[in-house]
Amino acid sequence: MTDNHLRDVIDVAAGRKPADIVLKNAKVINVVSHEIYEADVAILGDRIAGLGTYDGKTTYDLKGRHVCPGFIDAHVHIESSLLSVPEFARTVVARGTTAVVADPHEFANVMGAEGIAFVLRAAQYAPIDVFITLSSCVPASPLESTGVALGAEDLESFFANKWVLGLAEVMNYPGVINAQEDVLKKLAIAAGKVIDGHAPSLSGNGLAAYAAAGIMSDHECVDADEAAEKLRQGMYIMIREGSQTRNLKALLPLVRKETASHFMFCTDDKDVEDLLSEGQIDYMVRTAIAQGLDPILAVRLASYNTARYFGLKQRGAVVPGYHADLTILEDLQECRVTEVFRRGELVAQDGRCIAPRDALGQKVPLRSSIDVHWMEIADFQIPAPEGTSEASPPNIHVIHARENHIDTERSVEPAVVRNGLLVADPDRDLAKIMVIDRHRASGEIGHGFVRGFGLKGGAIASTVAHDAHNMIIVGMSDDDMLAAGIHLIKLHGGLAIVHEGRVLADVPLPIAGLVSSEPAERVARQLHELSAAAKQLDCPFEQPFMSLAFLSLSVIGKLKVTNLGLIDVEKFAPIPLIAD
Amino acid sequence: MTDNHLRDVIDVAAGRKPADIVLKNAKVINVVSHEIYEADVAILGDRIAGLGTYDGKTTYDLKGRHVCPGFIDAHVHIESSLLSVPEFARTVVARGTTAVVADPHEFANVMGAEGIAFVLRAAQYAPIDVFITLSSCVPASPLESTGVALGAEDLESFFANKWVLGLAEVMNYPGVINAQEDVLKKLAIAAGKVIDGHAPSLSGNGLAAYAAAGIMSDHECVDADEAAEKLRQGMYIMIREGSQTRNLKALLPLVRKETASHFMFCTDDKDVEDLLSEGQIDYMVRTAIAQGLDPILAVRLASYNTARYFGLKQRGAVVPGYHADLTILEDLQECRVTEVFRRGELVAQDGRCIAPRDALGQKVPLRSSIDVHWMEIADFQIPAPEGTSEASPPNIHVIHARENHIDTERSVEPAVVRNGLLVADPDRDLAKIMVIDRHRASGEIGHGFVRGFGLKGGAIASTVAHDAHNMIIVGMSDDDMLAAGIHLIKLHGGLAIVHEGRVLADVPLPIAGLVSSEPAERVARQLHELSAAAKQLDCPFEQPFMSLAFLSLSVIGKLKVTNLGLIDVEKFAPIPLIAD
Repeated sequence: MTDNHLRDVIDVAAGRKPADIVLKNAKVINVVSHEIYEADVAILGDRIAGLGTYDGKTTYDLKGRHVCPGFIDAHVHIESSLLSVPEFARTVVARGTTAVVADPHEFANVMGAEGIAFVLRAAQYAPIDVFITLSSCVPASPLESTGVALGAEDLESFFANKWVLGLAEVMNYPGVINAQEDVLKKLAIAAGKVIDGHAPSLSGNGLAAYAAAGIMSDHECVDADEAAEKLRQGMYIMIREGSQTRNLKALLPLVRKETASHFMFCTDDKDVEDLLSEGQIDYMVRTAIAQGLDPILAVRLASYNTARYFGLKQRGAVVPGYHADLTILEDLQECRVTEVFRRGELVAQDGRCIAPRDALGQKVPLRSSIDVHWMEIADFQIPAPEGTSEASPPNIHVIHARENHIDTERSVEPAVVRNGLLVADPDRDLAKIMVIDRHRASGEIGHGFVRGFGLKGGAIASTVAHDAHNMIIVGMSDDDMLAAGIHLIKLHGGLAIVHEGRVLADVPLPIAGLVSSEPAERVARQLHELSAAAKQLDCPFEQPFMSLAFLSLSVIGKLKVTNLGLIDVEKFAPIPLIAD
Repeated sequence: MTDNHLRDVIDVAAGRKPADIVLKNAKVINVVSHEIYEADVAILGDRIAGLGTYDGKTTYDLKGRHVCPGFIDAHVHIESSLLSVPEFARTVVARGTTAVVADPHEFANVMGAEGIAFVLRAAQYAPIDVFITLSSCVPASPLESTGVALGAEDLESFFANKWVLGLAEVMNYPGVINAQEDVLKKLAIAAGKVIDGHAPSLSGNGLAAYAAAGIMSDHECVDADEAAEKLRQGMYIMIREGSQTRNLKALLPLVRKETASHFMFCTDDKDVEDLLSEGQIDYMVRTAIAQGLDPILAVRLASYNTARYFGLKQRGAVVPGYHADLTILEDLQECRVTEVFRRGELVAQDGRCIAPRDALGQKVPLRSSIDVHWMEIADFQIPAPEGTSEASPPNIHVIHARENHIDTERSVEPAVVRNGLLVADPDRDLAKIMVIDRHRASGEIGHGFVRGFGLKGGAIASTVAHDAHNMIIVGMSDDDMLAAGIHLIKLHGGLAIVHEGRVLADVPLPIAGLVSSEPAERVARQLHELSAAAKQLDCPFEQPFMSLAFLSLSVIGKLKVTNLGLIDVEKFAPIPLIAD
């Protein structure tokens, strides 16, 4: 606040000047005093001036509706929505979220420090406040090539930015526990800031070491026992409810009145369709209340606790001097968000963002990210090893993809040889899979075979593939795989399904090859068409692109594939396609 | 932590290296998970490495005693103990306090910025961590002269010091509510830091304005209703239990599990005798538990909550990575403090500080503070106005002092005239009172008459007189008043009782004329002798020097006296001694 603004806020609070806006007939949810009561809420500029009896230039009659602090998502990868930062913001503000703490992990993996800077740039056109934690594990694995790497020296200067709150999920927990030099360097530059954790299933002395290193929170707990142990180490628990990973119901029993201040809500990864249909943090508030959590505590976990954890002063409560980021709820059962104020302005009403789109927000500069070595059909062919034939095929390692699982199973079985090549076989649900470097035009291609997609033909291709986001293509036809790859290059990245040379459906993701530049509803429609096209090819997965996106993540599962080839995850090393 | 120290802490936590110290058979009070359980506490250097099963070079068998985080006093004026910073620290660490947030308000009123710097200097020799909030109201009143004034520009550079946490109690709440320029300037430089409040009885829109200005807390609540209203404005409540002002029992009912994180304990002003006999924060923990507060919450209000409020990272809980500031309690009823570890070292045992005194701590440099214009007997005489006589005395304003009250009553009554002078009269309990500038040798003396001290003769004198700490002398004899004043000058400040030319008792307070350089037990003994001497003069007050110290505080009560003369507090202006 400027001195003058503060003076005006004090004048309004003291009743000497009228407020800009007064919310009348409001039931205030006070997460500090743990009360709900009727009071006028006086707003001046971007601040709450006072609660009591006030006059204002504009009055909203809330007719008994509830005033909550605007919701804050404690940890989110905006990229998972496939939306640009401003469009994501428009989508979630309509559901009552006025601030998020975003980890631009995918942008950072693709574009490095420039990806982080881009999010900070783009956020200026968002109708919510986008805080950043700095992606701590780029690249995520040495077994896949990205174009970038972020060391402590790359991250350090970002801490001078007021929107940067700390270090994002330190996924490399073995590195922490083993006191690895490069990891400790990153912790050191974040000292005095927030350091978020990510340590699924870690316990015992390993967990103690992780906590002792100064890691303050975790959002990977899947059951109450796991969360209880982490809480006991002094860690804050971010309860996560995303699209795939849903931990809310399992963790709620641990939230007691005595410990509630150490819990907060986050979505981590939630796709645009779920954001539009279910909601975001509002969905967690609603569900938590339905599960029996005290509604005031539910709202507190959605706002105040997160603000306190991140040291966000004067945010997260409906009290004087705090930011006028307010979410109005119809009631405390359905928790329908009727209005949302951000910085004292009405920005959403009845589930729609009414703030005008800023034209500049549509063209926040970022260089193109798809840099693929010129592809030819030969790149998609796998020669059969010498001494093998149709009648005497070699044994190969096969990846088994499963819906809603980011891990995989594996098998060894005979390949199909045709014309001296190893080929896909729709009858055995054996598709070819290619991961193509899209960062440095190196021509590096890893290949393998995968079961599970059930394609009768064609190819599906994506430039969203965790965590390096190389181009990944699965298909039954080399020609269609090549066509799909070329189509994605022309789109500057995206998702596509090709069959018999024709693009059945696509979702252009021109921003870093990761997110769309279109409004949420349009992206959701495109995704819907994409799913329909996948069904047309007999794919049994509801979300084939979600499964696809994790087949190159070389740190979880049994067998994966990256631009460096097939990866035996348990050995943490590449292996040849041919099994001896 | 240095990188190397962090590496070692992680090694110990992970079980790869032995700890320096392991506390065995410990019952850990975990204020984060709200549990008490048995675990080894492994300490390396100044940090807790892990809780679980650990080996160490040194082992303490706690035999089932309780391990708490070291207590933190959220708001204390060390000067009220009459002890130097290191001796105060030795006294409270023996009672389990390992950190305090001190407001050096008295040092600042006497010595200005140098007084604040002195506390920061002296704190380096203290066996506790002394954090500072910057005194926000120096001088406290325009109706008394100090040698110093602290504006925003004087305070600003202190914020660069890591021990400085924010702005201390903003007592000038009318200045805040009226958006006074100089007050807002101080708030502005503290933005992003903690701003403590002090607003007795403030409520309604005035309180809203105070909270809207960014004042984050209050320690002046005397009942639960007052505290509830402040909590509702988003303010944190520091529950105070000092020597005079005791709010603990009145406020405890407001501490609910849902709101507990917004409460903390402080002493504000507690004298050395009470510190030695009752204790400090340990006394509050003990009393709160006896009053029915959940013991874990009691410990949390005494440690963790305060650390969170002030943004003190990794302090206030017994969890990995946190500072190894630990207080061991025999049980959770008596709460006897058996051992105290600070920075991983045993510094107190069985109620005694065992850390060696640092000789340098005894002579932390600070210039002398008593600068009084050469005094003669004439300075202590008050000529009777022309036209008055023994038979026809003038009416004068008389101050009525009361024990345990910092306010006063007043009356108008005939003076006693003898030899052309207005004189004291033991028969009517009418003592003379003088307030002598001791900062600038200006020769400014305010004088008046006071009832209540009941002296049969002699004089009592002090250089502790809130908030300007001029020299204040009450007496029945001008000669004894002069002698007492000269004695205090020779002591470089202090407390003294003089009768018939003889010093009956004194307490030298050579540090800023405010605190002793002696150990606590010796100061307590001196104070005891001082009380005995006052009784010898028939003074009915248990603590005459406490009453004396507030007779010049010109912002509360009806009639006071400063170096500028008698002060009509309600008119907020000086008035003549003679009532017309």
